[in-house]
Amino acid sequence: MSAEGKPVITKKIVNGDAGYVLEDVPHLTDYLPDLPTYPNPLQDHPAYSVVKQYFVNTDDTVAQTIVVHKSSPRGVHFRRAGPRQKAYFESDEVTACIVTCGGLCPGLNTVIREIVCGLYDMYGVKTILGIEGGYRGFYARNTINLTRKTVSDIHKRGGTVLGTSRGGHDTTKIVDSIQDRGINQVYIIGGDGTQKGASVIFEEVQRRGLKVAVVGVPKTIDNDIEVIDKSFGFDTAVEEAQRAINAAHVESESQENGIGLVKLMGRNSGFIAMYATLASRDVDCCLIPESPFYLEGKGGLLEFIEKRLKEHGHMVIVVAEGAGQDLIAQDMRSMDVHDASGNKLLLDVGLWLSQKIKEHFVRKPKMPINLKYIDPTYMIRAIPSNASDNVYCTLLAHSAVHGAMAGYTGFTVGPVNGRHAYIPFDRITEKQKKVVITDRMWARLLSSTNQPSFMSNKYIEDSKKDNEAHNGTSKAENVSTDASLTNGSL
Amino acid sequence: MSAEGKPVITKKIVNGDAGYVLEDVPHLTDYLPDLPTYPNPLQDHPAYSVVKQYFVNTDDTVAQTIVVHKSSPRGVHFRRAGPRQKAYFESDEVTACIVTCGGLCPGLNTVIREIVCGLYDMYGVKTILGIEGGYRGFYARNTINLTRKTVSDIHKRGGTVLGTSRGGHDTTKIVDSIQDRGINQVYIIGGDGTQKGASVIFEEVQRRGLKVAVVGVPKTIDNDIEVIDKSFGFDTAVEEAQRAINAAHVESESQENGIGLVKLMGRNSGFIAMYATLASRDVDCCLIPESPFYLEGKGGLLEFIEKRLKEHGHMVIVVAEGAGQDLIAQDMRSMDVHDASGNKLLLDVGLWLSQKIKEHFVRKPKMPINLKYIDPTYMIRAIPSNASDNVYCTLLAHSAVHGAMAGYTGFTVGPVNGRHAYIPFDRITEKQKKVVITDRMWARLLSSTNQPSFMSNKYIEDSKKDNEAHNGTSKAENVSTDASLTNGSL
Amino acid sequence: MSAEGKPVITKKIVNGDAGYVLEDVPHLTDYLPDLPTYPNPLQDHPAYSVVKQYFVNTDDTVAQTIVVHKSSPRGVHFRRAGPRQKAYFESDEVTACIVTCGGLCPGLNTVIREIVCGLYDMYGVKTILGIEGGYRGFYARNTINLTRKTVSDIHKRGGTVLGTSRGGHDTTKIVDSIQDRGINQVYIIGGDGTQKGASVIFEEVQRRGLKVAVVGVPKTIDNDIEVIDKSFGFDTAVEEAQRAINAAHVESESQENGIGLVKLMGRNSGFIAMYATLASRDVDCCLIPESPFYLEGKGGLLEFIEKRLKEHGHMVIVVAEGAGQDLIAQDMRSMDVHDASGNKLLLDVGLWLSQKIKEHFVRKPKMPINLKYIDPTYMIRAIPSNASDNVYCTLLAHSAVHGAMAGYTGFTVGPVNGRHAYIPFDRITEKQKKVVITDRMWARLLSSTNQPSFMSNKYIEDSKKDNEAHNGTSKAENVSTDASLTNGSL
Amino acid sequence: MSAEGKPVITKKIVNGDAGYVLEDVPHLTDYLPDLPTYPNPLQDHPAYSVVKQYFVNTDDTVAQTIVVHKSSPRGVHFRRAGPRQKAYFESDEVTACIVTCGGLCPGLNTVIREIVCGLYDMYGVKTILGIEGGYRGFYARNTINLTRKTVSDIHKRGGTVLGTSRGGHDTTKIVDSIQDRGINQVYIIGGDGTQKGASVIFEEVQRRGLKVAVVGVPKTIDNDIEVIDKSFGFDTAVEEAQRAINAAHVESESQENGIGLVKLMGRNSGFIAMYATLASRDVDCCLIPESPFYLEGKGGLLEFIEKRLKEHGHMVIVVAEGAGQDLIAQDMRSMDVHDASGNKLLLDVGLWLSQKIKEHFVRKPKMPINLKYIDPTYMIRAIPSNASDNVYCTLLAHSAVHGAMAGYTGFTVGPVNGRHAYIPFDRITEKQKKVVITDRMWARLLSSTNQPSFMSNKYIEDSKKDNEAHNGTSKAENVSTDASLTNGSL
Repeated sequence: MSAEGKPVITKKIVNGDAGYVLEDVPHLTDYLPDLPTYPNPLQDHPAYSVVKQYFVNTDDTVAQTIVVHKSSPRGVHFRRAGPRQKAYFESDEVTACIVTCGGLCPGLNTVIREIVCGLYDMYGVKTILGIEGGYRGFYARNTINLTRKTVSDIHKRGGTVLGTSRGGHDTTKIVDSIQDRGINQVYIIGGDGTQKGASVIFEEVQRRGLKVAVVGVPKTIDNDIEVIDKSFGFDTAVEEAQRAINAAHVESESQENGIGLVKLMGRNSGFIAMYATLASRDVDCCLIPESPFYLEGKGGLLEFIEKRLKEHGHMVIVVAEGAGQDLIAQDMRSMDVHDASGNKLLLDVGLWLSQKIKEHFVRKPKMPINLKYIDPTYMIRAIPSNASDNVYCTLLAHSAVHGAMAGYTGFTVGPVNGRHAYIPFDRITEKQKKVVITDRMWARLLSSTNQPSFMSNKYIEDSKKDNEAHNGTSKAENVSTDASLTNGSL
Repeated sequence: MSAEGKPVITKKIVNGDAGYVLEDVPHLTDYLPDLPTYPNPLQDHPAYSVVKQYFVNTDDTVAQTIVVHKSSPRGVHFRRAGPRQKAYFESDEVTACIVTCGGLCPGLNTVIREIVCGLYDMYGVKTILGIEGGYRGFYARNTINLTRKTVSDIHKRGGTVLGTSRGGHDTTKIVDSIQDRGINQVYIIGGDGTQKGASVIFEEVQRRGLKVAVVGVPKTIDNDIEVIDKSFGFDTAVEEAQRAINAAHVESESQENGIGLVKLMGRNSGFIAMYATLASRDVDCCLIPESPFYLEGKGGLLEFIEKRLKEHGHMVIVVAEGAGQDLIAQDMRSMDVHDASGNKLLLDVGLWLSQKIKEHFVRKPKMPINLKYIDPTYMIRAIPSNASDNVYCTLLAHSAVHGAMAGYTGFTVGPVNGRHAYIPFDRITEKQKKVVITDRMWARLLSSTNQPSFMSNKYIEDSKKDNEAHNGTSKAENVSTDASLTNGSL
Repeated sequence: MSAEGKPVITKKIVNGDAGYVLEDVPHLTDYLPDLPTYPNPLQDHPAYSVVKQYFVNTDDTVAQTIVVHKSSPRGVHFRRAGPRQKAYFESDEVTACIVTCGGLCPGLNTVIREIVCGLYDMYGVKTILGIEGGYRGFYARNTINLTRKTVSDIHKRGGTVLGTSRGGHDTTKIVDSIQDRGINQVYIIGGDGTQKGASVIFEEVQRRGLKVAVVGVPKTIDNDIEVIDKSFGFDTAVEEAQRAINAAHVESESQENGIGLVKLMGRNSGFIAMYATLASRDVDCCLIPESPFYLEGKGGLLEFIEKRLKEHGHMVIVVAEGAGQDLIAQDMRSMDVHDASGNKLLLDVGLWLSQKIKEHFVRKPKMPINLKYIDPTYMIRAIPSNASDNVYCTLLAHSAVHGAMAGYTGFTVGPVNGRHAYIPFDRITEKQKKVVITDRMWARLLSSTNQPSFMSNKYIEDSKKDNEAHNGTSKAENVSTDASLTNGSL
Repeated sequence: MSAEGKPVITKKIVNGDAGYVLEDVPHLTDYLPDLPTYPNPLQDHPAYSVVKQYFVNTDDTVAQTIVVHKSSPRGVHFRRAGPRQKAYFESDEVTACIVTCGGLCPGLNTVIREIVCGLYDMYGVKTILGIEGGYRGFYARNTINLTRKTVSDIHKRGGTVLGTSRGGHDTTKIVDSIQDRGINQVYIIGGDGTQKGASVIFEEVQRRGLKVAVVGVPKTIDNDIEVIDKSFGFDTAVEEAQRAINAAHVESESQENGIGLVKLMGRNSGFIAMYATLASRDVDCCLIPESPFYLEGKGGLLEFIEKRLKEHGHMVIVVAEGAGQDLIAQDMRSMDVHDASGNKLLLDVGLWLSQKIKEHFVRKPKMPINLKYIDPTYMIRAIPSNASDNVYCTLLAHSAVHGAMAGYTGFTVGPVNGRHAYIPFDRITEKQKKVVITDRMWARLLSSTNQPSFMSNKYIEDSKKDNEAHNGTSKAENVSTDASLTNGSL
């Protein structure tokens, strides 16, 4: 049978008693059944001599649903990450490569460092290539040799030493390049789109019958990845966002009718805006993509701003970059704007909202406002990861390495309820995680800012119905929504 | 039956199918069965109008064991934290008090702030007293009135606005004071000893048949509390510890045979030292209370220092304050030290170890060393909590408030696998959480520093046996140890 | 003679031997010759008991020109700041007021705090009013009472506790308000325009024959004030600007043809941009208002960007907000932009320059760029002052207080060659300090960035000629330009 | 005449009219009169094309005394630093070396970087050797080649990339090494002792008649160097010290009778302690070496502590490491301490003072205290320099380079009243700068902390007399003491 004809394995579901479901990840032996195995070199490592039972039991799985009733079904589980007794690669045989794609995120360099150190220190792998400048680096002539020494201090710097770019994905050319260079472990660090690309690379690798492990390390500063508790760099980003909010607070307090407006990251989900608001306590209004709002009229944003200014004399607004995109689009259509570049600038929600608020108050000469707009996006993305993210990135990278060495492929890695697990690609690419605005975390935010919901009653009803339809019968409801909460969300 | 004769309820265990166990917390109705209930005022709160099903289902429980096999027993569960449909207190009826005990920890002020704001904003409670200076503040004449306004900015400051102290616990006098002041919700923030005190207060309250909810909020910068994932302030402490390690690194690198020695918090457990070492990557040796070491001879610390200096020319050592206490005690006995004050100083492991290392190398004139000792303890304890701890403290405080309003008592609160839960006192006071040195996290540390285990073979064997005995049969082993890991431990 | 007819004293020049000139400041006795004096209460202050000769000798003056030749004329001097033996106010008699005007600047709260503490601690003055919201606060009904306690912690916060605004200056109404409230010491903290306003207030006060000391404390984050070494907050601003430059550096390095563009404060002078560039060493190009540039063609900015990207693959550009305003104005005229709001946005040099660079490279499809624009303005302005600025603000405030108590009026205060001095208003309002681009400091910057001068030869020649004309004969040239350098400029 | 017999030139004094005195520095032509000169390559540098008159006029001098009277003598001047028209070295001819000695200080790496970049960029010098590990590195076989690339990022790191050590000075061997390696420019960065060593090296070089420029760059975190305004790293140190003081403040406020004790650097002078105290405003008592104090009895420190605790409930004490050394010495003599290691520890003023305070209050059981001792020394020394120090270090390094290229030798460099100047070695080594406790800056500190002077009346009188004797006649007094103030001190 030709490679093209070979069916690609996609889903591996195992069912057990009491509603137990394991959504397993692919393994090299799924399509290369006769691969030899080797004892894991870790068992000779002095550091592990004291560890009673270092290796993960092959049957270990991690529960996704952990808020349960006495008689609930046990629900979905994932394969536990960690080192296995048997390796499917010999140390000398491995040629690994690492690539980083998409926007910057604190922790990228730590992940790179720890994949290199993990492979080298734990498994004695010495050939590790850095692919430069994102996916398109696979077509470039050169790669970087990554050694313990070259990566030794990189975790103290922001950005990625490998460089990055968006797009540039050509599956055939990439897999050709993997074959040409003799690469047999591919570590792909990137967001949603990148992971979809990784998934396709995995399929092509499988189709060609190559002994190549393809591992995705999910990266998104927005924390909008399903299943996993939290994405790396998120904590650091929320921390750094505090600076901008503090500045907005100081600026607004020092002026009559001062408004500090801060735009934070979040194209499709408002996690950074929500957590930064909850951590700061200086915010009067937080706008996110998941929660629609309107400007004019009763119950609208402008009315609320006016009210808050009259009460407190100043206010701070945090807006996620993806909020209000429908309003902006509407606005654009109705405006007579000729200049192409002008248009683009206005699509920035921060600049657009500044403009709208200013225009509103220009019409109220008795209430002159002082609006200061702060966009800290690139200052947040570019900082090095904090201590908590450093530890996270280390575990993430090591889990990825253990998985590849154990022959797993076509998987991503991440913490599920605090335990690192191997997750099939499709589970994290099929949809993006969003703030559930009918959930308590958002209610908590509304309570802390004391802002209205800016939603029409109809919208609320519809939204509740949608959610019910999605979540099934009423009793299990708040059990199952729970799975979509980030860690510590309750 | 007289109050004294009344048996105190201590354990509430509920069993279910498939090995399901719920370790429940006490409720006021356990000994005051006829209390009236009220609708939770949250259901009229505008912020919650959009939330579909705000209230926690009374049957919700949180699983402690989440790394499972297809057919494992389901194990221990705790009652899920969160607001209930029915309140056991009317808003006007509540007189709450807050007390902070023990050493400083980042986040104390945020917890205070959020108990106040939670009670006020969510439940309309307006009478909240601050007990000053720890437990002994209960006997003082004065208390502070805590309002939204007085706590508004305190989360930006380190320390505790209530003041704190150690000890000073007299159960009878405290419960007298609670009765005299008409207090019916007691929030006690403190460590191990403090929680034991809270447990006894709860028992006395129950004995007297008072309608008083006693809630413990566990505080320990050392992260040595069982069951919960992580204690508040821990992240901030690990972050701040990086400064000291960086300084030690710079100092040691700039001198021939430079040694940077950093003492970090951790009387009985080495979590801060371990995580700070893992986050930093600049540490050559990490010493914690759980892992015994010896100085002299083959395989000892001094030999290792000599070896590392010869290889790298410099090194950084991190030592937890509780490490090596047996060695120090031994040393003290054999020394002829007359001066009382001198003795005390030497009990500091950092100063003691500095001395021992210097003495060793004085005997090696060809290898003069430059040792710099850094003790950042008070600089770490005193900083304000970071963003991540701020959000954590908010959820913790709100969970505590929801529990008390719902009539639960005699409980502590904290995240279990990322979900906040109500935990019986005895589960967190019966023993302290420790770094499991036969576990993978410690192996990971040893691998990152490349330090020896400093343990005799005999010790290792014994330690493994102990652990096995404790954990029961072999198969479930690495499943059940898992429960003692902190969040994110793999 | 009527008040209106009274001539206002403006200049007080004293000449001495060897070219010595003293540009003195006005004194209350200039127009109120018979004022009584009092012993300075400082001489009874315990803190001063150890100080041998606490009071400034009345003849002390500070030299402005200090780079001299063996036989140079001695040049201009200013009256030394500091406490005098004789006070012209009794402690009980004083009613002081403080007002802050214009944009935020780190250190405002420290200056406020130290005027209050200086008056209170050193002179026993207890009536100090805070005028709220800038000059227009004089017409408001209310003022704030400033006490030691209310200002105790304000230096740890950014912004100004008094609030601020621009403009709002009506001399007659302000002096009426001063009279009505019985104020006899007026401390006015603000920039160029504010000091001009203070000067006019002083003249009106003098015209009315009031015993009111009017003191200006010069404030400008841009450091564009003549005569004084450096303005408060400048150091803090340059420090904070490093964050933005670092971020731009990381962003640009991580992308192919990455360009990090940072806009810094500086409407008319480029000091912050210049010093931030010199301190950072990561900047490839620094554009300031004083140094004209052009975009297109040989020797233009776009050519340089292309060249630097080809050499290094990435670059960082720092632009002061006032740079290139002529180019933008030109551009606006030639563009067909209908939308009013769009226009305004484009006047921001950062957005405009981003646009221009992008448009240029859109025409070079083989060289796609990645431009990230960072505007940290409000994040810089709003932070608290650093330690160095805190000490500076303290000395500044105390000098102001000593001057007023000694009867001086119509003056500003600031360090001249490191010694605090009293300076006539006109000397700091007659022109703004600018970066001298024919001076070595700018040459040093060009050398560090290795950027071209972007100037036509003709411009250079003209500029040199202008400077010569201004500075007089050639020999004294680099002596006299020296006076316009900021402290530490070589 | 033999080399040994040659008289070494030490002082070059030039007198002028009106009391003008120039204390000049040596020049190579003083003992090698016929050296050829070359045009300064800077005149062809594009960066300097716009600069009208780049070169320093050879007659330029910087006035030390700038607080003057109309008829004061002009006083001491120093030669202005900066590039000269004529160079005494050709670019290709230069072999420079750099050495760092003594303790760490923020900014060392920036100075190294900028000597390298200055030589390379401005003068085209390409052979620059790094001497490793202080003076003793001259005897080592190896040196480091310093290039633009190797130093490119070092200013972002603390410490010194060259390594450092104390002592190790053997003039003959060092000058032999200089000759053997063909070095003709020696840059020596270090403190008091190091500069004395540099002075002796210069004398030996002169004696041997070598064309070698010897340049000292004064380094002391304590700011205890005469003549210059401020030493590099001082600003950064004062800034970083704020962290420790803040922590002490938080700790002390959170406990009943809390005392926060912070030890800061300053063996012989209390500048860091004084400025950190003035910048912080949270300090109740500042103890420095220059101001003696006593513990027991009326007017003593312990009485003051008791008083302040009774008033405020808590306090912060800052002590410079050299304070109270006489008291400690006395104490040691009277104590019966057997253990050698114990003794040493007690010589640390921080630990000693902690002990003394604790012992005192042990005797007052009604007033139990909570003392927290913080020693941030190594955390301060090891940080990278802040922006302000970075700019300073750049100017310092460039001035040094210009001086050496212009043939000056046997000199140090530093800012005098804000202008960089060349200063003869003996002027900075003959004595250390100290805080003048009879001066206003110290009075200002006493006033801000409201602490007593802790001095007996007799001491005060003696101290005043000493000062008078030293400063000459009374009238010029506060003029001449002025020269010993640090920049901005008035």
